Amino acid sequence: MKTKGSLLSFQYEYAAPARAGVEGLHDRDALWQRFRSVRAHTQRLAAPLSAEDQCVQSMPDASPAKWHLAHTSWFFETVLLRPQLPHYRVFDERYAFLFNSYYESLGPRHVRAERGMLTRPSVEEVLRYREHVDAAMERFIDEADDAAWNEAAEVLTLGLHHEQQHQELLATDIKHLLSMNPLQPVYAPASGDGAAHALRDSTGQTSRDGRSPAGAASASVVSALHPAAVCGEPMRWLERPGGICQVGAASSHGVDDFAFDNETPRHRVLLRAHRIASRPVSCGEYLAFMRDGGYGRANLWLSDGWAAVQSQGWQAPLYWSDVQAERPGIFTLHGTREIDPAEPVCHLSLYEAAAYAEWAGARLPTEFEWEAAAAGGDPALHGTGEVWEWTRSSYDPYPGFRPLPGALAEYNGKFMVGQIVLRGGSCATPPEHARPSYRNFFPPGARWQFSGLRLAQDLDR
Amino acid sequence: MKTKGSLLSFQYEYAAPARAGVEGLHDRDALWQRFRSVRAHTQRLAAPLSAEDQCVQSMPDASPAKWHLAHTSWFFETVLLRPQLPHYRVFDERYAFLFNSYYESLGPRHVRAERGMLTRPSVEEVLRYREHVDAAMERFIDEADDAAWNEAAEVLTLGLHHEQQHQELLATDIKHLLSMNPLQPVYAPASGDGAAHALRDSTGQTSRDGRSPAGAASASVVSALHPAAVCGEPMRWLERPGGICQVGAASSHGVDDFAFDNETPRHRVLLRAHRIASRPVSCGEYLAFMRDGGYGRANLWLSDGWAAVQSQGWQAPLYWSDVQAERPGIFTLHGTREIDPAEPVCHLSLYEAAAYAEWAGARLPTEFEWEAAAAGGDPALHGTGEVWEWTRSSYDPYPGFRPLPGALAEYNGKFMVGQIVLRGGSCATPPEHARPSYRNFFPPGARWQFSGLRLAQDLDR
Amino acid sequence: MKTKGSLLSFQYEYAAPARAGVEGLHDRDALWQRFRSVRAHTQRLAAPLSAEDQCVQSMPDASPAKWHLAHTSWFFETVLLRPQLPHYRVFDERYAFLFNSYYESLGPRHVRAERGMLTRPSVEEVLRYREHVDAAMERFIDEADDAAWNEAAEVLTLGLHHEQQHQELLATDIKHLLSMNPLQPVYAPASGDGAAHALRDSTGQTSRDGRSPAGAASASVVSALHPAAVCGEPMRWLERPGGICQVGAASSHGVDDFAFDNETPRHRVLLRAHRIASRPVSCGEYLAFMRDGGYGRANLWLSDGWAAVQSQGWQAPLYWSDVQAERPGIFTLHGTREIDPAEPVCHLSLYEAAAYAEWAGARLPTEFEWEAAAAGGDPALHGTGEVWEWTRSSYDPYPGFRPLPGALAEYNGKFMVGQIVLRGGSCATPPEHARPSYRNFFPPGARWQFSGLRLAQDLDR
Amino acid sequence: MKTKGSLLSFQYEYAAPARAGVEGLHDRDALWQRFRSVRAHTQRLAAPLSAEDQCVQSMPDASPAKWHLAHTSWFFETVLLRPQLPHYRVFDERYAFLFNSYYESLGPRHVRAERGMLTRPSVEEVLRYREHVDAAMERFIDEADDAAWNEAAEVLTLGLHHEQQHQELLATDIKHLLSMNPLQPVYAPASGDGAAHALRDSTGQTSRDGRSPAGAASASVVSALHPAAVCGEPMRWLERPGGICQVGAASSHGVDDFAFDNETPRHRVLLRAHRIASRPVSCGEYLAFMRDGGYGRANLWLSDGWAAVQSQGWQAPLYWSDVQAERPGIFTLHGTREIDPAEPVCHLSLYEAAAYAEWAGARLPTEFEWEAAAAGGDPALHGTGEVWEWTRSSYDPYPGFRPLPGALAEYNGKFMVGQIVLRGGSCATPPEHARPSYRNFFPPGARWQFSGLRLAQDLDR
Repeated sequence: MKTKGSLLSFQYEYAAPARAGVEGLHDRDALWQRFRSVRAHTQRLAAPLSAEDQCVQSMPDASPAKWHLAHTSWFFETVLLRPQLPHYRVFDERYAFLFNSYYESLGPRHVRAERGMLTRPSVEEVLRYREHVDAAMERFIDEADDAAWNEAAEVLTLGLHHEQQHQELLATDIKHLLSMNPLQPVYAPASGDGAAHALRDSTGQTSRDGRSPAGAASASVVSALHPAAVCGEPMRWLERPGGICQVGAASSHGVDDFAFDNETPRHRVLLRAHRIASRPVSCGEYLAFMRDGGYGRANLWLSDGWAAVQSQGWQAPLYWSDVQAERPGIFTLHGTREIDPAEPVCHLSLYEAAAYAEWAGARLPTEFEWEAAAAGGDPALHGTGEVWEWTRSSYDPYPGFRPLPGALAEYNGKFMVGQIVLRGGSCATPPEHARPSYRNFFPPGARWQFSGLRLAQDLDR
Repeated sequence: MKTKGSLLSFQYEYAAPARAGVEGLHDRDALWQRFRSVRAHTQRLAAPLSAEDQCVQSMPDASPAKWHLAHTSWFFETVLLRPQLPHYRVFDERYAFLFNSYYESLGPRHVRAERGMLTRPSVEEVLRYREHVDAAMERFIDEADDAAWNEAAEVLTLGLHHEQQHQELLATDIKHLLSMNPLQPVYAPASGDGAAHALRDSTGQTSRDGRSPAGAASASVVSALHPAAVCGEPMRWLERPGGICQVGAASSHGVDDFAFDNETPRHRVLLRAHRIASRPVSCGEYLAFMRDGGYGRANLWLSDGWAAVQSQGWQAPLYWSDVQAERPGIFTLHGTREIDPAEPVCHLSLYEAAAYAEWAGARLPTEFEWEAAAAGGDPALHGTGEVWEWTRSSYDPYPGFRPLPGALAEYNGKFMVGQIVLRGGSCATPPEHARPSYRNFFPPGARWQFSGLRLAQDLDR
Repeated sequence: MKTKGSLLSFQYEYAAPARAGVEGLHDRDALWQRFRSVRAHTQRLAAPLSAEDQCVQSMPDASPAKWHLAHTSWFFETVLLRPQLPHYRVFDERYAFLFNSYYESLGPRHVRAERGMLTRPSVEEVLRYREHVDAAMERFIDEADDAAWNEAAEVLTLGLHHEQQHQELLATDIKHLLSMNPLQPVYAPASGDGAAHALRDSTGQTSRDGRSPAGAASASVVSALHPAAVCGEPMRWLERPGGICQVGAASSHGVDDFAFDNETPRHRVLLRAHRIASRPVSCGEYLAFMRDGGYGRANLWLSDGWAAVQSQGWQAPLYWSDVQAERPGIFTLHGTREIDPAEPVCHLSLYEAAAYAEWAGARLPTEFEWEAAAAGGDPALHGTGEVWEWTRSSYDPYPGFRPLPGALAEYNGKFMVGQIVLRGGSCATPPEHARPSYRNFFPPGARWQFSGLRLAQDLDR
Repeated sequence: MKTKGSLLSFQYEYAAPARAGVEGLHDRDALWQRFRSVRAHTQRLAAPLSAEDQCVQSMPDASPAKWHLAHTSWFFETVLLRPQLPHYRVFDERYAFLFNSYYESLGPRHVRAERGMLTRPSVEEVLRYREHVDAAMERFIDEADDAAWNEAAEVLTLGLHHEQQHQELLATDIKHLLSMNPLQPVYAPASGDGAAHALRDSTGQTSRDGRSPAGAASASVVSALHPAAVCGEPMRWLERPGGICQVGAASSHGVDDFAFDNETPRHRVLLRAHRIASRPVSCGEYLAFMRDGGYGRANLWLSDGWAAVQSQGWQAPLYWSDVQAERPGIFTLHGTREIDPAEPVCHLSLYEAAAYAEWAGARLPTEFEWEAAAAGGDPALHGTGEVWEWTRSSYDPYPGFRPLPGALAEYNGKFMVGQIVLRGGSCATPPEHARPSYRNFFPPGARWQFSGLRLAQDLDR
């Protein structure tokens, strides 16, 4: 039995899905089950939240929970139901304006920074919208002829991965919102069988920390939407040879072997020999950096990072408090408590990650070093999947990159400037969503994601 | 029977309250009834709103409805219950931080621009807070000995007027929020016996428009939180002699003859002979200004006003739409419809009011011209009480002005710079709240209040 | 002999000009001499400055010295030479765009905040522009027929007062620019016979401080563009009765009895009995306020002022340094040195002036209290003319105010909102420019003018 | 004879320098001559500018010409003279504060955005500073013992390349400043033997365009600080095979084979087969994009680019005017004229370059595709060296990148985030400064550099 605590590569977790159905037809039942499961998971995430919690937008980068609930439904309505389901009745024509995120080709849309003004439609109305879309999707999956179905299955799969991305965003956005409240509200208790549990184990299968679900139910929930303390053992360097590696995904938007277009085409890269750390950097290690004056030493920082430190007054990762205390506090979705030195450090900007690496006499891995190690078998990267790991790779298109056709061309490609690639997945990433070739990306100053780092080093330094 | 549509001065509406009780003791029952009535009215105003509506802050100048509900309770708790009610149990110690508006002397407080982040406490919790405060206030009114009571009655009265100010703000803030929503939600229907009615007639007495409540119920509600169409007749000039007038209020913070400190001391001013308009400027008249290119002619505008026109892209009053249509649209709390030319024009900045007056060959009255006319008997100012009327007086302290002692010194005095006086009251001003000496004040660019204008002219021009 | 140090009223200094010439015709020679004198004074002010000094704009509120030199010439060209001098050759048609300050009715103009981008025309070219205008003005004064002349004389006089306003602005703007330079450049030495001297005594007559020029030359220059140490004696209260007073100027834009339109019409006001201080507040007194924590006590401040203290980090008047030292430093146009406790405190915002007054148990005078005292004979206001004195009067129009006709309507009237009146004149105000009815005005947060304060008090407090 | 108009690769221009002197000692005379030449060239660039032109800062990204003159001298003083020349007298201790650009390790420095406030020191003083440094450098080169010299020669060479970078910045910054002036001043005429000539041919050797200096003198000057019209012939695709290539520079900071640290280490990359355009995109071609609605079609743009188009109102490249005219105007350092369709389009942001490429059915080359083609011999890239060419490569560190030791570590490495690589050099790049491995970098929205583009395409599209 694979255990999370071992050094076994996490990529096996992504190897599970069976291949496509007989004679090339995607299995309607299986996809319908998956659709229901993903959709239900989104709502479980919102369940602990009041209508007020779901409505407010805490900063322009974040969106209200209610908006996530509606937008992910708009996506299915727009790319599948409207064009392909005969006699589909649009739930509300005005939602095309309200819940289009950024698709210029789909017409004008509501200003992003004003999503929090939408006290109407209410949460109830949005849930009715979801039911309406779900019912229509069920009918569509039932009624589509084989040709239409086979094509639609890929778009549907994209829609599910899209919704999973928003599940993570919903968690990070709500965390940011609640953190702004002086009352420091608790999203959900860290134990029990409520919504928090659902976040990490909605499938009823082996929980992320590798313990059997029966015996570990309450324990596994402890770390539900917070990184597990996987950095208890000393970091070791894994030596990696140089040479040509295959990276990326063969094709995008399949059903059983889904990948986003930004992971394609699969191609060869030339790596230099290097070392990569056996596990992410821990809170305890990061605290040593802070205690050594890390936030006050310009020479450790990228120029933009140093400017951010000064203009933002950064002294610690986002959500830390009592920074001078021997053990600082940390705001989590399950309450505020002391940091655990064995947790991966989290909610860092790229700037902080790079400054830490400089202080530690190391560097960040490139996205390809990371991917090669993650995909490369035994021994591999421990602790992956707790925090997104900043790489030292800007988010540029792969050679030969071609976006999806139509409106979906806007899904990824147009953001390929000014952002940095993160790899791996986090405690808030839904199960079966990430994979070694997955390219997450955020601007270098972003801190509200579950973002940490893993060190690397040149071999010949 | 006094009718609203006549030229009879509105000041009689404010003359009703009986004098203080026997032997100088304020009547506990009467004040308790008034307390209950005002407190209930606030909640009736919020009743048509969902929890989401009550939580969101649409701009830094506005506050969430829920915040208004809580802050007005905090006020009683802070100035009466904590210092004066033995064994008073504070509802939640953290509310002193959350719901202090701007009292520096009462300690640190939550950032104004982040009031909308407070998804917790919930509306329900805030309503429990209100009940808790109301119950304690009842006990206090019952149990206070005569000396304490007589002193407290004045502070209580201030608290009620404070709450009435927030009733109007609640209405203007909600109007702004709903207007930001592309769905253009209706706060409440303009007819029927629902909450909208309550806004203008919570006392069960003669409604503001002078019609008998029984027969006019549905009609009176039509104009509930929107200015009534009182400008149907042609404007006439009322000639006013020059000379020495008494203005202001004799003393602040009484019970039966309450006035804010900024209205004191009563003093003499020297007026010049002038004319003042018989009624406010109407939407129809303002539309003529617009059609004559008023928003494009720099020479009509104050310098800061012209800059605002250009930087904000103003082309019409706030909440107008379809400006090029023969009859533009207007967003109201009761839905969007065409403007009524006989309505007072509303939601103007001082800049627009002054530009209109310039275009019309007139000027705005000073606050003292206005007050002298309003207080001066027959014939007087028609249409007063529908829209706050911008004056050409900056909000400076009166000669001999002395703020209240203690924390209440911050109530008015510290805002006496950079603001302009408005007079009269609006459709959203609670009954018995305004009076001829009342000095409302806002920065010259503010448009989200129910603000219009009345013209004046020098006699010897 | 009147001495500056005495309590004799300064208004006599403004009484000197002789009446208009025989038979109602203004004296051409006298005006030409005055024109030459004013124009030469402007250039003397710029003489100590390099071309670089004259080109740079240190903030949007300030203008480059070169721009002042050109704009004041553009004024004469635009209001006199173009419309009235036959065959006048415009120096450069493009200057109408570059050097129009804010006259909307005179066409589009260069963006105010970009005046510092004008490295061309060069200083030399601007000086040629001035010569060109001066020569044309000489011809105009010679050649105009009597009717045209008599009318033009008033506009010419306005142009001279306009240029004097810019002389003071040139000094304050250059002071601000030089203060931004870490090298802390000296504009001119405080002694000697250089340009600095010229600033205060360009006419060759009795110097501003009343001493004979011969004996006082070096001493008078010491304080040239810095307030003289006139606060050496203890402040005394001057009691002033209440009642009706005449304020303002009878008519605007005369020649021998010139006043700006904003000083008119002369009218009666009703004053309340009060006290006014015998002299301005000194640096020593202000330092006591600072030492008593004045910048840290919210209850002393207007709300906007307290916000400014916090957002700007104010801890002392503008241009003070080493604030913790026993004797802080002060940057002046004549170098950086220690403050002199007997100097009037200078470079305050209204907010600081009002906070100081609150701390001192006093208030600021209204503009009419100030004017009545200044115009009222003996004993009167000592130290007037060293620093502009903030009043507690917003800059509103006088009753019956009517702006000048044509483009000159924009001179003053359109700024009558959001500003505060200052009275008296400063060390940088040219001789014969100010008068008791003079209304200077700036926004309440402005600190780069030579602005201080004088206390007042209600009699019956 | 190599001619500019041919397809011969420009890299030969960079191949000229002879190897280091005998026995490994760098030739003192040769370096001194080169020092003098580079230093003189900087001053020739500034010669057509008035003191005012040299003082003003037109935006935070730009620096005053005078500041460039001083900063480049401060560099030699700081890295060579102070640490290594015995008895060196620092010219002015305060300059370390004023003219340090961004070296945190060298102490505090003047705020970048306020460089334009430095009207002092004057241009004359800065020129004296340059003389002082030059004289000391001459003494240093003479007197250093061999060991010190050999080490210093590398730093000196770096200092010269540093100064050459500032020569280009001086030109681009002055262009921006002059363009802000409604008078549209001419920096220098495009013909004659003045300073403009010097810009492109300060060495007296073969001019950049390959013509013999004698015959081409006047012609070469025509295009002096403006891209030459090298796009007259139709663009052809050059097919480039995939495979492993060497890129980068072997070592940084040599003398005869100088490279910046950001070009190192030389390493192998794996390229995919592709096409690259024979010449840059021309103004004529770009105009076709504009006429086809390129600035109005969101689907062509990166997301940040589309936001910039809308917020900045971009409709054409920077410095274009009369955009609707058949032949738009263009502001150049030699005056404003119509665009030449055969000129390379210039002053584009990366966003515009990428949108054009999308419109043209192509893409931008990666920096390695560009370098391989430029270094790769015949046939190669025509028109290189007229405009910097945006690549589709973010400015990330090379594998194994190690910054210089000491303060010079800040030279390049700390800027490696948020920027995009440009390749090739421009008409404003000094001779012998660029090379195929040269990595210029700017943020994607920057337009004031001489930046254009060259197209590329995948082979298998």
